[in-house]
Amino acid sequence: MKINGKHYQTIWETDEKLTSISIIDQRLLPHKFEIVNLLTFEDFLIAIKDMLVRGAPLIGVTTAYALYFAVKDCAESEFDATFEVSIKKLLSTRPTAVNLKNTIELARKSIGSLNSIEAKKEALLNFARKLLKEDKEICKKIGEHGSKLLEDIFRRKGATVNILTHCNAGWLATIDYGTALAPIYIARDKGVDVHVWVDETRPRLQGAKLTAFELLHEGIPHTVISDNTGGLLMQKGMVDIVIVGTDRTTRKGDVVNKIGTYLKALSAYDNNVPFYVALPSTSIDWSEELTVDQIPIEIRNENEVKYVSGVVDGKFVDVLITPKSSKALNYAFDITPSRLVTGLITERGICPASEEGLLSLFPEMVK
Amino acid sequence: MKINGKHYQTIWETDEKLTSISIIDQRLLPHKFEIVNLLTFEDFLIAIKDMLVRGAPLIGVTTAYALYFAVKDCAESEFDATFEVSIKKLLSTRPTAVNLKNTIELARKSIGSLNSIEAKKEALLNFARKLLKEDKEICKKIGEHGSKLLEDIFRRKGATVNILTHCNAGWLATIDYGTALAPIYIARDKGVDVHVWVDETRPRLQGAKLTAFELLHEGIPHTVISDNTGGLLMQKGMVDIVIVGTDRTTRKGDVVNKIGTYLKALSAYDNNVPFYVALPSTSIDWSEELTVDQIPIEIRNENEVKYVSGVVDGKFVDVLITPKSSKALNYAFDITPSRLVTGLITERGICPASEEGLLSLFPEMVK
Repeated sequence: MKINGKHYQTIWETDEKLTSISIIDQRLLPHKFEIVNLLTFEDFLIAIKDMLVRGAPLIGVTTAYALYFAVKDCAESEFDATFEVSIKKLLSTRPTAVNLKNTIELARKSIGSLNSIEAKKEALLNFARKLLKEDKEICKKIGEHGSKLLEDIFRRKGATVNILTHCNAGWLATIDYGTALAPIYIARDKGVDVHVWVDETRPRLQGAKLTAFELLHEGIPHTVISDNTGGLLMQKGMVDIVIVGTDRTTRKGDVVNKIGTYLKALSAYDNNVPFYVALPSTSIDWSEELTVDQIPIEIRNENEVKYVSGVVDGKFVDVLITPKSSKALNYAFDITPSRLVTGLITERGICPASEEGLLSLFPEMVK
Repeated sequence: MKINGKHYQTIWETDEKLTSISIIDQRLLPHKFEIVNLLTFEDFLIAIKDMLVRGAPLIGVTTAYALYFAVKDCAESEFDATFEVSIKKLLSTRPTAVNLKNTIELARKSIGSLNSIEAKKEALLNFARKLLKEDKEICKKIGEHGSKLLEDIFRRKGATVNILTHCNAGWLATIDYGTALAPIYIARDKGVDVHVWVDETRPRLQGAKLTAFELLHEGIPHTVISDNTGGLLMQKGMVDIVIVGTDRTTRKGDVVNKIGTYLKALSAYDNNVPFYVALPSTSIDWSEELTVDQIPIEIRNENEVKYVSGVVDGKFVDVLITPKSSKALNYAFDITPSRLVTGLITERGICPASEEGLLSLFPEMVK
C-alpha cells in the first residue's frame, strides 16, 4: 500500500546480493518514516522483540528470513546447533504470536530431508520468499471475501459504511493489504463509501499511530477514538460493522487478539452490530480446545502503561501519566469467545466462528 | 483525605473574610500539588469549564459558591440580571453534569421568597456551606453502606478484595471520601484487605492521574491498567467487584458515567462480577425516562484524544500520538443500562438499579 504516494511492502530484500532485509521501523510511525536494514540474526531478534515489526503475518515472514540469516554463513559442523539455538531465541521474543511457532515448524520441515548444508540454506531462503508471496496473496483474498460484507451494507444502507477496528491489522501488520483492513481497501476500490472508527489501542497505541497512518496515506476517511468510545458509538447506531485481526484463533473459533477486543465484541453483541475477525489460516491454532487459563497471555513492561510515547516539537518523548510509584499491569491480549463472533474472514471465505465452520473451509484439518 | 500525610478537602473557604475560595488544580495531579484561590465569578467559570475541579459533587459545591461570588458585590438593581446571566454561563460549562442544573435550582429556591438583597446574598452563601457539609456526610454514608459489600466478599473469600474502578469517583471528585472510592476507604479502615484495579480512563486519564494519586496517598494497594484490560482480568477471575461513580443516573436506574463505563459493565455482566454504582442522590435525574438519544452527551475537544498530557523531566508536556491531520472524536460519557447494574449505593442504602429500587429509598419522589 502507499506511503506518500509510493507503494511499499513492510519487508523486502534490500538488494540482489541479499546483504540485508529492509523493514520499516514501525515504532516511529506515524511521526517519522524510517527504513531499517537487518544485517544479522541479532538484528532480526531485536526487530521482533522491540516491535520494529509487529503483527502476526509480518512476524512470521520476519522469522523466516531470520532463520535464513541465522545460518547463512554457518559452517556445516555448526549448522544444527545454530539452527536450534536460533529457534529458541526466536520463540522467546513474542510468546503469544502463534505465527512464530508455526513459521518455525514449517521452516524446519522445509529443510527436513535435505543433506547438504547449501541445500538447507537455499531451502530456508526459498521458504521465506514463498511465505512472503503467499501472505500477500492470502491478504488480498481476505480483502476480496470481506469486501462483500461492506458492499452488502453499502447497498442496503445507501450511505457511508462505518467500520470500527481495534489495534492495527492493516498492511503494516502483514506484507501488504492487511487482514482486518484489506476488506476496507478493496471495498473502497470497488466504489464503496467507507469511514473507519480507529480505536487508539492503549497501551501501545497501534490504532492511533499505525492504523490512522495507513488510512491517511491511502486517503480513507477515518476518526481516531479512545478505546472507551466504541460502546457508545454502537449504542448510538454509528457503527455498521466491526472488523479486527487476531494473533491466534483456536480450533473452536475463540479469538486471541489485542487487549480490549473482547470489550468491543461484547458491545457489538449487545447492540446487534456484526463482529468479524479477519485472519490468514496461518493464525489458526489447530491444537485441541484451549481455555482462557491455558492460553499464554504476554505480559509486557508496566512502563508501556505508565508512560505514553508521542512527539512534541518534532521530538520523540515518553511522558509519565501516573504517579511515579504507582504500579501498572500490562497484559497484551485478551480472548473473545466464539459466541460473540459473527464470522471469521479467511483466505478461503467467510465461516462461522466454530470448529465446524473452520473445518468447512479447511477440511484437511479434520482429525 | 490525605495528601502527603495532611488532611485536605477539595474546596474550602480560604479565610474568614471569604476573599476567595480555595481549590486544588486537579489538572496538575499527580505530578504537582497546587492550590488555586478563586477570587471572581470568572475564576469559578474557568475552574469548572477547564476542569481544575471536576466530578459531579465537587462541581455542585463549586457552582454554589460561584453563584454567591457572582452576586456578592452586586448593587440591588443589578442583582436579578447578574444572577440569571451567571446561571446561563454556568450551565454552558459542562452540559452533562446534572449537579450543575440541580444545584442552580436549589440555589434559586434558597433565595426564592427573600426580599432584601443582603438576605439573598447570605442565603446563597449559606446554601453553598450547607451543600458542602451535606456532601461530606452523604459520601461518608455511601462509604459505610458500600463497605459492607467489600466486607462480605472479604469474609467469604478470606483474601484480598480486588475492586475495579473507572475514572475518578474518589474524594477528589467530591468534597471528601468520594463516592465509588468511599466504600474502599471505609472498608480499609475496618480492616478489609483491598486492592484496586485503576482504569487509566482515556482520554483525560482521570484514573491514572487522580485515582492512583488518591490511593497512593492513602496507602491503598492499587495497579493502573489500560482501559482495555478489565475484560481480561474479569475473565481470569481477578476482579471481585466493580464500583464506579456517575454523573447522572436516570429515574429508571440507567447510569450516565465516564465514557467506557458501559464496556466494563458488559464484561462484569458476562463474567458474573457484581457491578455497583455509587451515587449521592443529588446525581439522580428524577425526570421521566430518557433514551440514549435524549441524554445530552458532552463532546469535548478532539485534541484530548490526539494529544496525551504527562510530564517528562518535571515538565508538563502534551505529546501528539496520532498523525497530525487525522481527525478524532471525543465523547465524554456513555450510558450503562440498568439491566447491567447489580445495585446503586446511595447515602440511604443500596437498592436495585430501577425506578422501584430508587423509590424504595426515596419515597418522597413518588409522583
